[in-house]
Amino acid sequence: MRILVAGGAGFIGSHLCDRLVAAGHRTVAVDDLSLGRRENIAHLDNKANFAFRKFSILEPAFELLMQEESFDAVFHLAANSDIQLGSKSRRVDLDRTFLTTWSVCENMARFGVRQLLFASTSAVYGEVDKPMSEDDGPLIPISFYGAAKLASEAYCSAYAHRHDIRTWVFRFPNVVGPRATHGVILDFIRKLKGNANFLEVLGDGTQEKPYLYVRDLLDAILLVWERCTPEPYEVFNIGPESATRVRTIAESVVEAMGFKKAVTIRYGKEPRGWPGDVPKFAYDLTKIHGLEWKPRCSSDEAVRRAVGDVLDELAVQ
Amino acid sequence: MRILVAGGAGFIGSHLCDRLVAAGHRTVAVDDLSLGRRENIAHLDNKANFAFRKFSILEPAFELLMQEESFDAVFHLAANSDIQLGSKSRRVDLDRTFLTTWSVCENMARFGVRQLLFASTSAVYGEVDKPMSEDDGPLIPISFYGAAKLASEAYCSAYAHRHDIRTWVFRFPNVVGPRATHGVILDFIRKLKGNANFLEVLGDGTQEKPYLYVRDLLDAILLVWERCTPEPYEVFNIGPESATRVRTIAESVVEAMGFKKAVTIRYGKEPRGWPGDVPKFAYDLTKIHGLEWKPRCSSDEAVRRAVGDVLDELAVQ
Repeated sequence: MRILVAGGAGFIGSHLCDRLVAAGHRTVAVDDLSLGRRENIAHLDNKANFAFRKFSILEPAFELLMQEESFDAVFHLAANSDIQLGSKSRRVDLDRTFLTTWSVCENMARFGVRQLLFASTSAVYGEVDKPMSEDDGPLIPISFYGAAKLASEAYCSAYAHRHDIRTWVFRFPNVVGPRATHGVILDFIRKLKGNANFLEVLGDGTQEKPYLYVRDLLDAILLVWERCTPEPYEVFNIGPESATRVRTIAESVVEAMGFKKAVTIRYGKEPRGWPGDVPKFAYDLTKIHGLEWKPRCSSDEAVRRAVGDVLDELAVQ
Repeated sequence: MRILVAGGAGFIGSHLCDRLVAAGHRTVAVDDLSLGRRENIAHLDNKANFAFRKFSILEPAFELLMQEESFDAVFHLAANSDIQLGSKSRRVDLDRTFLTTWSVCENMARFGVRQLLFASTSAVYGEVDKPMSEDDGPLIPISFYGAAKLASEAYCSAYAHRHDIRTWVFRFPNVVGPRATHGVILDFIRKLKGNANFLEVLGDGTQEKPYLYVRDLLDAILLVWERCTPEPYEVFNIGPESATRVRTIAESVVEAMGFKKAVTIRYGKEPRGWPGDVPKFAYDLTKIHGLEWKPRCSSDEAVRRAVGDVLDELAVQ
């Protein structure tokens, strides 16, 4: 098949390109490299079924590409995935997360592309006190990242129903693994590389969320796509059944870096790490379990592996 | 209080201006007159506590107004309220419905306005088979109108939580009454004025939705605002407990115009009136009933009164 990966040079997008290229699909990665990195996909340059195009989904070049290539499916992962950045500059999520989705959907409708796989987030649920299934409400995001993703879902739904675009929406948890560009693990490691005496943690360390290893995430997405579930528009929660506390992550990083007890970990006073942070979240995963997907790594294992991955990457930089 | 009514020359917005001005609030109506009409508010021009400004929420003039006036509250009703138009031109709802909301929220955050009352719609629910409460999901709009309103809700939620804007979202049903600019009643009357022999109905006439008289809607909104419920972000379904079939509306219009049996009513074959139309919808109204609001008109009464209103208006044009 002919596949477009929007955000294809990013953390998750580049791993997806690896899988699609290996499976023999003609794969075009589009990325403006605002968060994505050219080196994430450099190893694919010699593959005959891979191409990289550097521009933003919001530029006219994207429209031209959609017109020229007859894509069978679009995996849309282009977004400002840095939630904290979105809480500083309110326009970032609107442009890079919501309006990119609008442009993807609009151009799919114009040029007759029939399958969309969209990367959404648990942040669409907001701050809730029960495990949420895909059909549960209310959806009351407290961050601009969550708002932009929910706004995107709303448009994906309308385009799916009005323009016969079969659409699968995946509500991601925290995803970790090689090539990550930001997030709590990278943050802690960078801080400790700067000062090995103490580690300052945003929030009181009790934040507890599910962490998913990137390979497990891609297994789920590709499984749903292969099964080609019949509804015009379907939403899937993706995550491990377990969750990991920020305190555990801090201790794992300190241990993996070989500092043992020598580091003083300083916690904040608030349960919330930053404005817009949801301190605790749990999915109802019945739907994706019904497709016989379960992640190979638990949340704690995913964190441990990802700490190792990041340290390996930093060692060769 | 100092109040901004965005979309203040529109059907519902102009009635709201009447009520706010009568209650003694300093009221500024902003409208680009794309759907709104100058004559809807002309009778308020001689009121000392009323002002009209003609521009779009998307123009720099809006930002200047928000900076100059220290509004206490914004009632945001500016939108493309013509669902069928939105299904023809996909950009219309994005610009006039979603991006106006983004601009309203963003400028409220910048200039410290503390209360937002937002006109949303039952169309955010999509096509569902049970009465929906405000906390129910899924939210899967099938029209661009519904998508733009859900996208707006998502941003209202994030701004409410991040910028201390107390926000009330009202999910409107079909609202009818004097000054309506479009909708099924006006559509039927115009068709019969053009040709009194037959009336062509979009859809098979079995579409059944709640119709609310505009005065009842405003009673609900103003009641919620006065009670000033304490949550930072609250959603309210507003509607009558009853619903009216399109077939009943067609027959009411024919009768009210004095045509009796002489008109042949031709129904379509599909239950859906047009692409994106939700043929049947019912609210769970427990929440608004808890505030002791009930509409004075049933759905059928609202339709009958509104048919009379429209005929009265056309008689003097």
